[in-house]
Amino acid sequence: MLKVPKHQVAGHQALNGNLGPLVDDSGLFYKPLQGGGRGSHEVAFYTSFSSNPDIPTHICRFFPKFYGTKLLEASDGSGLLPHLVLEDLTLGLSSPSIMDIKIGSRTWPPQESEDYIQKCLKKDRETSSLTLGFRLSGLQVYGSKETEYWKPERKYVQKFSAEEVRLALKKFVSSNISDGMDWKPDCSFASMVYGGSGGILSQLLELKAWFEDQTIFHFYSCSVLLMYEEKGKSPAVKLIDFAHVVEGSDGIIDHNFLGGLCSFIKFMSEILTASPGDHRNELESSV
Amino acid sequence: MLKVPKHQVAGHQALNGNLGPLVDDSGLFYKPLQGGGRGSHEVAFYTSFSSNPDIPTHICRFFPKFYGTKLLEASDGSGLLPHLVLEDLTLGLSSPSIMDIKIGSRTWPPQESEDYIQKCLKKDRETSSLTLGFRLSGLQVYGSKETEYWKPERKYVQKFSAEEVRLALKKFVSSNISDGMDWKPDCSFASMVYGGSGGILSQLLELKAWFEDQTIFHFYSCSVLLMYEEKGKSPAVKLIDFAHVVEGSDGIIDHNFLGGLCSFIKFMSEILTASPGDHRNELESSV
Repeated sequence: MLKVPKHQVAGHQALNGNLGPLVDDSGLFYKPLQGGGRGSHEVAFYTSFSSNPDIPTHICRFFPKFYGTKLLEASDGSGLLPHLVLEDLTLGLSSPSIMDIKIGSRTWPPQESEDYIQKCLKKDRETSSLTLGFRLSGLQVYGSKETEYWKPERKYVQKFSAEEVRLALKKFVSSNISDGMDWKPDCSFASMVYGGSGGILSQLLELKAWFEDQTIFHFYSCSVLLMYEEKGKSPAVKLIDFAHVVEGSDGIIDHNFLGGLCSFIKFMSEILTASPGDHRNELESSV
Repeated sequence: MLKVPKHQVAGHQALNGNLGPLVDDSGLFYKPLQGGGRGSHEVAFYTSFSSNPDIPTHICRFFPKFYGTKLLEASDGSGLLPHLVLEDLTLGLSSPSIMDIKIGSRTWPPQESEDYIQKCLKKDRETSSLTLGFRLSGLQVYGSKETEYWKPERKYVQKFSAEEVRLALKKFVSSNISDGMDWKPDCSFASMVYGGSGGILSQLLELKAWFEDQTIFHFYSCSVLLMYEEKGKSPAVKLIDFAHVVEGSDGIIDHNFLGGLCSFIKFMSEILTASPGDHRNELESSV
């Protein structure tokens, strides 16, 4: 029985007869192959990645598990369409807080067509990508049974200023959620979610160390997904969206992704350092 | 007595009646203020940088000492012109090997004029900046009394492929210099110049650690200068060319410079690891 995913914060959604991903009860996520070669490009990435013996095990866990492709009835009723079969990352989470961050000040590979480059460059300049080295693609923060989620509109989120990103990162780990941006978030989950050896910052630093060295792939227009649940499992970091990943050939690191990731890490480190109580010890032990 | 600097590898040169920097015997370097506001912008940077108490001492040493400005007869005979008065970085070096690397895949600040941005973007795409995260701006490698320097032309150097950059980095620390690119460099100075606690890699890693944290300046179109002499002082790393530095205001790191620097560091690390003898210990101790 295929359903529309409950906790999607970015990307096309299978609502109101639109084309989008579906999930089933067994923990699988079905993503329709995107047009213009992007879908087959993403399949090629997953195939290459999952068979590459040079990816360390502790890095593999940051990627959704890949189970091939499958022909399925598309969510827009357009008939049978090939879908990527992936792990459903939000399986078992009833009220997760989720943030999708598109990493890199540049979302286009150098070898793309001129039209595509100009389109991406324009968007990178209009959103926060160029200045911050990343842009938020979407987020939802669980408040309470009454208020449910804070889920600001995507078109605003992408253009968040440095100060607004800071506030969003604080709200993401606060228990006093409301709809406005005009209150002081308490950051009461900061040390649990961002800090500590299993926290998000520590996981991002593992990713960073890999990106300082790896020359296998360049991850253009790829997102880091952050997830946690108030009463639940440890916070998770995942990489998603590989329609514009390029295989490296010249032993060059992905300096574009690395720079953007370091910028995002700096934002998170500061919130952890400044949040209630003194979390500098957690921060240092995780670095 | 003002003279044309002997060991300039990039930038405008005061030769044949052109406008360029001059040096004197007391160890000062006089750089004519560039047009279009760039000169006064560079003066503003040096003034701000040299009076900023938040720059750590171990970072200050990577920058040329600044002694204000002075009206001097320009080298092109155009009359009195204001010059930046800086430390002459090659003072006392008789046959230095020098490499100038412009760091960053993007050489333009977001707030620049559209014309300037398009001009820089074109050049970043034509040279290695976009792909490698840096481009060589010039280099000279001392060979012997007979062969003197290997000094490839700037227009080629800027477009070096990853493989050509690797070869240049090898030749930079080799004793068997010749004019062609078709021989095997011996890398006999690699561990002395790149490796060890006072070596170039160790200094670049210090810079990197600062760039992971500092949000004071964003260094667009700025160069890292590497210098050493066969029989001489320890190798030096300097930052130069600050006509396009922007003061940070939003607590954002310079992810563009950081990414490019990490890319360059990766190239150097690999040469050190692969060079004659096993230098992995030097590398690790410097990390």
